[in-house]
Formats: sequence, C-alpha cells, structure tokens
Amino acid sequence: MFVDLNSDLGESFGSWKMGNDAQILPIVSSANIACGFHAGDPLGILKTLKQAVALDVTIGAHVAYPDLVGFGRRNMDLSREELIADVLYQISALDGLAKVAGSKVKYVKPHGALYNTIANDAVQAEAVIAAIQMYNPKLVLVALAGSNLVEQARQAGLKVVSEAFADRAYNSDGSLVSRRLEGAVLHDSQFVAKRVVSMLQNGGVESIDGVFTPIQADSICLHGDTAGALEMAAEIKAELIKNNIQIRAFCP
Amino acid sequence: MFVDLNSDLGESFGSWKMGNDAQILPIVSSANIACGFHAGDPLGILKTLKQAVALDVTIGAHVAYPDLVGFGRRNMDLSREELIADVLYQISALDGLAKVAGSKVKYVKPHGALYNTIANDAVQAEAVIAAIQMYNPKLVLVALAGSNLVEQARQAGLKVVSEAFADRAYNSDGSLVSRRLEGAVLHDSQFVAKRVVSMLQNGGVESIDGVFTPIQADSICLHGDTAGALEMAAEIKAELIKNNIQIRAFCP
Amino acid sequence: MFVDLNSDLGESFGSWKMGNDAQILPIVSSANIACGFHAGDPLGILKTLKQAVALDVTIGAHVAYPDLVGFGRRNMDLSREELIADVLYQISALDGLAKVAGSKVKYVKPHGALYNTIANDAVQAEAVIAAIQMYNPKLVLVALAGSNLVEQARQAGLKVVSEAFADRAYNSDGSLVSRRLEGAVLHDSQFVAKRVVSMLQNGGVESIDGVFTPIQADSICLHGDTAGALEMAAEIKAELIKNNIQIRAFCP
Amino acid sequence: MFVDLNSDLGESFGSWKMGNDAQILPIVSSANIACGFHAGDPLGILKTLKQAVALDVTIGAHVAYPDLVGFGRRNMDLSREELIADVLYQISALDGLAKVAGSKVKYVKPHGALYNTIANDAVQAEAVIAAIQMYNPKLVLVALAGSNLVEQARQAGLKVVSEAFADRAYNSDGSLVSRRLEGAVLHDSQFVAKRVVSMLQNGGVESIDGVFTPIQADSICLHGDTAGALEMAAEIKAELIKNNIQIRAFCP
Repeated sequence: MFVDLNSDLGESFGSWKMGNDAQILPIVSSANIACGFHAGDPLGILKTLKQAVALDVTIGAHVAYPDLVGFGRRNMDLSREELIADVLYQISALDGLAKVAGSKVKYVKPHGALYNTIANDAVQAEAVIAAIQMYNPKLVLVALAGSNLVEQARQAGLKVVSEAFADRAYNSDGSLVSRRLEGAVLHDSQFVAKRVVSMLQNGGVESIDGVFTPIQADSICLHGDTAGALEMAAEIKAELIKNNIQIRAFCP
Repeated sequence: MFVDLNSDLGESFGSWKMGNDAQILPIVSSANIACGFHAGDPLGILKTLKQAVALDVTIGAHVAYPDLVGFGRRNMDLSREELIADVLYQISALDGLAKVAGSKVKYVKPHGALYNTIANDAVQAEAVIAAIQMYNPKLVLVALAGSNLVEQARQAGLKVVSEAFADRAYNSDGSLVSRRLEGAVLHDSQFVAKRVVSMLQNGGVESIDGVFTPIQADSICLHGDTAGALEMAAEIKAELIKNNIQIRAFCP
Repeated sequence: MFVDLNSDLGESFGSWKMGNDAQILPIVSSANIACGFHAGDPLGILKTLKQAVALDVTIGAHVAYPDLVGFGRRNMDLSREELIADVLYQISALDGLAKVAGSKVKYVKPHGALYNTIANDAVQAEAVIAAIQMYNPKLVLVALAGSNLVEQARQAGLKVVSEAFADRAYNSDGSLVSRRLEGAVLHDSQFVAKRVVSMLQNGGVESIDGVFTPIQADSICLHGDTAGALEMAAEIKAELIKNNIQIRAFCP
Repeated sequence: MFVDLNSDLGESFGSWKMGNDAQILPIVSSANIACGFHAGDPLGILKTLKQAVALDVTIGAHVAYPDLVGFGRRNMDLSREELIADVLYQISALDGLAKVAGSKVKYVKPHGALYNTIANDAVQAEAVIAAIQMYNPKLVLVALAGSNLVEQARQAGLKVVSEAFADRAYNSDGSLVSRRLEGAVLHDSQFVAKRVVSMLQNGGVESIDGVFTPIQADSICLHGDTAGALEMAAEIKAELIKNNIQIRAFCP
C-alpha cells in the first residue's frame, strides 16, 4: 500500500512570510507551489523550488484566481478565455522556474476558491482542464475526492488524483463538512493520524453523522503553517510508516 | 545585406488597449512581447503570441521591472537575487504561453528603465545576464548598440544583438540624444527610412552635431502605436526592400 | 423639468489611456470618478478631478471590486467586512484628492460588476450602504432605476438617485436587456436623444417587446469613450435643452 | 521632559500577518499606519486604526512608494507629479478611514526607501513636502534627525519632528551606521533603554567611534514585530517613566 502526501508551499509574498516550507518539505512527497496569483513572489517561489528539488519532492502548480489581497479564496467570475490564459501563465511561470531549479511541474492543483468552484462547476472546470491539456496533457490534476471534477477530467483524458483531507470531517455523501459547522476541523494529532491509516486501509471514513463513507484517497493534504500543523503532519507520516503504508508521489 | 526589424508588442492590459499588434506584426521580423510586469495580461499576451506565430515572427521576452502603473519606465533598485528571479519568472511565463501558441522564446530584450539602466550599469546587467544563462544560455540578448552591455554580455558568453533606433538622433559618441532635447526624435518618415538604409550601408549615421558616428545596427526598433508610427514602419520596410536589404530575424 | 447627466471618468491607468475626460466633462453635470480599484492611478485621478472642478461638475466616487485586470467587471465574492473596508478606502482616497482639487465627493456610484450585483443582491448591497453611512450619511447613492437597491437604500436612510441608460433597451419589467441579446444597445444618436426626452416627459420608455415601461430617470448615464459616444452625448444634451429640460446635478 | 514613541503599524496584507499591533499600541504614543502602497489592505488598516483610537494613540500616515512585493524598501524613480499624487492618495485614504474609526491623520512619516531617499534628496523631498501642504499644511512631518529634510521642510513652512532610533548605532556626523556594518543594530534591551534616556537627557549619544554626537530626538522609533522587539519597547518605556520622562504624542 502507498499514498502521496501533499502540502501548499511557496505562499510567502515579499516581506510577508507564510508557512514553514523547510519544515514541511521533508515530510511530504508532493509540493503544491504558489505561482504568484494568490501568493508567491518570483524569488520566494524559486527558493521553495530549490528546497523541494533538493529533497526530491515532486512539484505541482498551485494555480489560483488573480487575487493577492484575497489570497485566492474569493470566487471570481472569470470568462473561459481569461481562466485558460491565467492557468497557462501560472503553470508556465512555475515550470520555467522549476527548470532552473532542476526539475519540472508534474501536476496541477487548483487553489482555494478555484479548487472549490471547479469541484462541481463544470464550466470553470472545463477551462482548467483545457488549459492543462494545452500546456501538457501528461500533467496530472489533483481534485477533491468524490467531486464531479474527478470524472469530468478523466473523461476529458486527464490523469486525475483524488485528494482527501486528513483533518477534515466528512458528510455521509463524501463531501467535506463546511468549516462554518462545529466539528468540521479535527485537532487531535493522534486521532487524525490513525484516521488517515484507517481511511486508506478501509477505503473510507466514518462521516460526521456516524456512517461509513467511501473516500478515494490517492493523496492526503497536510498543513505546515503552525507548530501544531507540523506536529500533526509528522504524526501522520509516522503512523503511515508504522502501518507499512509507503509514502510516495503519484508522479515521481 | 540583411537586418532585423523589431517592435514592442502585447502591451495592452485588460480593458486598456495599447499598440496595434495586428498592424505592426506583418512589418517586423521580431516581436518583443510584454510578460506581465510592465504590461500584458495572460489573455492579451496569448493573443499576440498567436498572431506572431501565424506570421512567423520570432518571439522575444520583453522583460521589465515590476511596475504596471509606471509601465516599467521608472528605475527600481532591485537586489541581484530579486532581479534574477523576476527575469526568470517573466521569461518562463512567456515561454510557456509561446509553447501553447506553437513557438518559443528565442531572445530577451529588457524594457524601458531596465533597458536603459543595464546599458551601462554593470551590476544590474550582470543579474539579467545571469538569469538568461540560467534559463537558456542560447537565448539572444538585444542590447543598445554601443552600450557597455554589448561587450559585458558577450564576455559572459551570450550572443548579443545590437539595436539601433530608426527615429532617434545620435550623439557623436554613439549614445542616443536625450528625449528632453530638441531634435531627439525624428518625424519625417521618408527621411527616417533613407537614414536607416544609409546607417546599414555605411555602418553609421550623422550625429546631431554633424559628425559621422559608427552604429552597429543588427536590429532596428520600430513603433506601431500610432497611425504615423505604422506609416513610418511601413516606409522603412519598403525602403529597405528597394535597396536589396533583406529583413530577417536574427534568430529565426 | 430637469435631469442629471453622468459619465464614468478617470479610467485611465498609468500609460494606458481610456475615455475622453476633457471632451465629455463639458457635457455632463456629474462625474463618476474611478478610485484606483478597477481603474485610475493617483495622478490621473487628480487630473480628472481638477478638470471636473474647473467645469463645476459634481464629483462622485465610482467604487469597484479590487480587480484592475478585469476592470471591475467580474463578480467577486467579498465578505461584508472586506467590501465595507474596500468601499471606505476608495471613497476616502477620492474625497481627499477632491479636496486638493477644490471640491469633494458628493455621491457614490458603484461600478461594473458591483453595480450589477448590488442592484438585486441585498447582502452585498447592505455592505455598500453601510460603508456610505459610516463615511458620510449625506452622500447620495446612484442606483439602477427599478432595482431592489433603490428601495433598500432608501429604507436604510440614504438619499438615492435612479439611473437610466440612454442607449440601452429595456425589458417590460424595467430591467435592462442583456448585452448578449440583439438590440440591447441602441446606436442611432438622434433616436436615442429623442427617446431620452420622451423617457423624461412620459416617465418611461417602450420596452423591447413594445410595451410602455415606467422608468424613473433622475440621472442619465452617458459614454464618452469613442467619437460616436461623444457625438451621441452631445446630441442628447442638445435635445434636452431644445425641449426645455434643464441639465443639473442632483447634488450641486 | 517628554518624548514621543512611534511605531510602524497596519503592515499586514490580506492573509499575511506582520507585526503585533495589539501589543505595541499600548506602548507607543504615535502610530505610523500603512496606507496600502507598501503594506496594508483596507480591512486590516481599519482594524488597526480602531485599536489605535481606542488607546488614544495619535495617527500618522506611513506613506511609501507603490511597491508591495518590495515592501516599499526599494528606491523608485517617480516623477514629481507622480510622487505628489501618490502621497496625496495615501494620506487621503488613511484620513478617511481614520475618520470612520473616530479620529484623523495628524502627521506623515514616509516609509522605507522613501524615508531614506528624502532625508537627503531635495528633489523628492520637495514633492513630499508639497503634497503635505496641498492636503493639510498643519500636518506634521516626521524626519530623520539630523537630515537635510528637517531644515528643508521647516523652511517650506511645515512643522517637523526629528526622529531618532533606539536600537541603531550612530556615526559621529549624526547619520545612522549602515545596517551592512557590524554593530549597526543594538540588541541589549537594558543597554538600549538606558541609552534612550541618556540621549534625551544629554541631547545626543556616543557614536560608533566613541565621540559624543548630538541627536535631536523628538520621537523615538520602536519596533514590535518580534517578541524581543516588544520586550525592548516595553523596557524603553519603563526606563523613560522611571527617569520622569513623560511619553506623549507630538501632536495629541
């Protein structure tokens, strides 16, 4: 058995620091690196890319809406043409910097509001899929496990990886419990680590209302922005190894 | 005999239009395309790239300081690391979009204040040269004819193309007459066209104070942003052809 | 009888020019001036403000979503707190510049996607209304004639001016015909000018499907961005004067 | 005896946090608040303004070059007109938000590269002075103690406050020791606190090469961005009180 661990990286901007790239990189197998639209300045991105390459972590483009002040977390009503060009620009910029750092972009994970929107909005999803295919049809798309996007992108010919969240509660239909509801985010590192192992071994989790819910977890999203998050990430990795679940990138 | 004709393109930004890319592209052999830092949004850049590719015009990255509101025309005191990363990001973004449009970036021409600064500032020049070499040492650098940059970049191992300006007066030391002085910009299309031919045939021009001044003109910069500029560009091209001077890109 | 004529101004950005502020200002009584979020840089805004003050044109803040590349024309999902602060920042910036130019902001007209959204989205509308009341409850709000916003803002205590569009077709429910449909935009200057007069004299227009439709037109929006638009604006003004309809700002 | 204590605040941007505004505000008498050009988004600025007003801290506009990614720390070659308009826009935006928070802007402190440049560059200094006088000639300018700007602004009619730095070494000509040199920044809180008291009591400090150097310290700049900085700020305040030096804003 094996699984990929991914994390959002390169999210500093100029003098503003965010995350602990150097601490989380040794834990994960895949790095979703900001491309400058929701976060990331060229110099900071390049530094994170070099750290990722040094640790042999697979590089993905964390593409987003053009909204720095909103950190890409606010829905934006882009036209199909605009969204395609914005995605292409971001993958391109990151891929060139990755080349300089000694590697290349191997997958795309949309960020924030774009990630959530295309999970079920087929129109914007089509634009993102089209952009990836124009740039390089071999790039893998990371999509929310159970979302419509998984099927839509596969039918369009993309390789898709289903992503699960270690520290988020699930509804019984496989969707994430909204962050606005109590119990949406899990905080006990040990519990979360065991739950990840169980999710992989059993192919699902117990939903917030107590029903076994299938979750296809090809990759698990980890956070590294706080001391607690780093500790949880390390705990999850240790628990996986203890249970003979290998951690490896989905596209090494 | 032959010469390259280049022009600055892709300089619209969102709803703001600038230049007449569709009119100037059939005249030139090389297109300096904005990369998003002084001008150019992803969708507009992509459209210009497609037009350039359709007309078989060679594509260059028109890299600049990160200053949209100042259009890259104001000096900025970037550190070496920042400048390298900013240049890499811009070349990368354009190269990826160019790939999608069916071609690739073949040269780099710094824009505006960056162009003028590195003509003689060896420190910022070194950063730009280093960035080009990191990305692709085969990329050609377009530099102001007669500037220190020409020699500095050649010694660093880059292929350099010397650029002359069709409609600008020259001092007798080969530098451009400052735009603040009378007579700095020439407006008579016929005169300018004949002067370009003479510059190429004789290897120089008469300076503003009446002395023959050698100018190495591998590429001539043309403007297309006004009706008058387009007419002058067409006139120059016609005069070159009439005098059996072939127009061809320095890196086709 | 009297009516206000307004136009969107100050929409250049750095080197990118948009509109013909100097030509449209002598025609209108109210100037909706960009505040830097969808368009307008400080220097350009200040120049337009000085022109408006010289011609005794009333100044309004044309507030927008923070989206330069999209020109404020794309919906954005801002939180209430963010929208309030963004509106406050924009009114403040323009009001201070207006003071330096010798006047002050007297009304607020939301721009583009924000204008359309709050016409009927009570949640974002409430944030805009709250921001205006925090800044200066005497500021007038310009709202789409017939929209829910008119009533919502009045009930909240704001003075509201209903805005009609000279060159747009109306549906029989008083809403604007979508620009995507044929016939949505009227191009015959003479016809449009007579229709404006008739709209004011009769309190409405004939809808696209031939039914008389009441339109409360306190202010008419004119465009000045093309030669044709300027001509139409002048024609409308002349026709109003010919019919003894006085042109005056709703808040002089 | 009395002195003002000031600190740079409101420097977060969207999701990126910087500084500890809530911790440093109870220590200082004057708050230099970012205006959105080097840092500060509208919502974050408004929150800091409300905290400052609640603690009766005097509000100043921390105006800067338009360079978010460079945090206003890189020299920019703005024209006089551009610089005037940029300063006006920033003071205006902050003043309007301050009004909503229950106060107003009472002084201007240029930030970063602009602060350093105008200390001795009379051309850019003139533009900043002109902008302040256009907006409100009663606003106070905070300038580097001993710089040419102090005299230039006074001769132009502005009230000027001389600023000293608690934790920076001075050269014997009264200038700051460059941060690139060893010993430029002092780290011992107790030593720094006693040195501030001595600077005020004796009208100067011992320079890095051991000579008594006069420093006019109307206001002392404190930092609050790290735990160590906050501790040093508190130590300085305590030492001032112990020595009967009153802390009060220069324009309450």
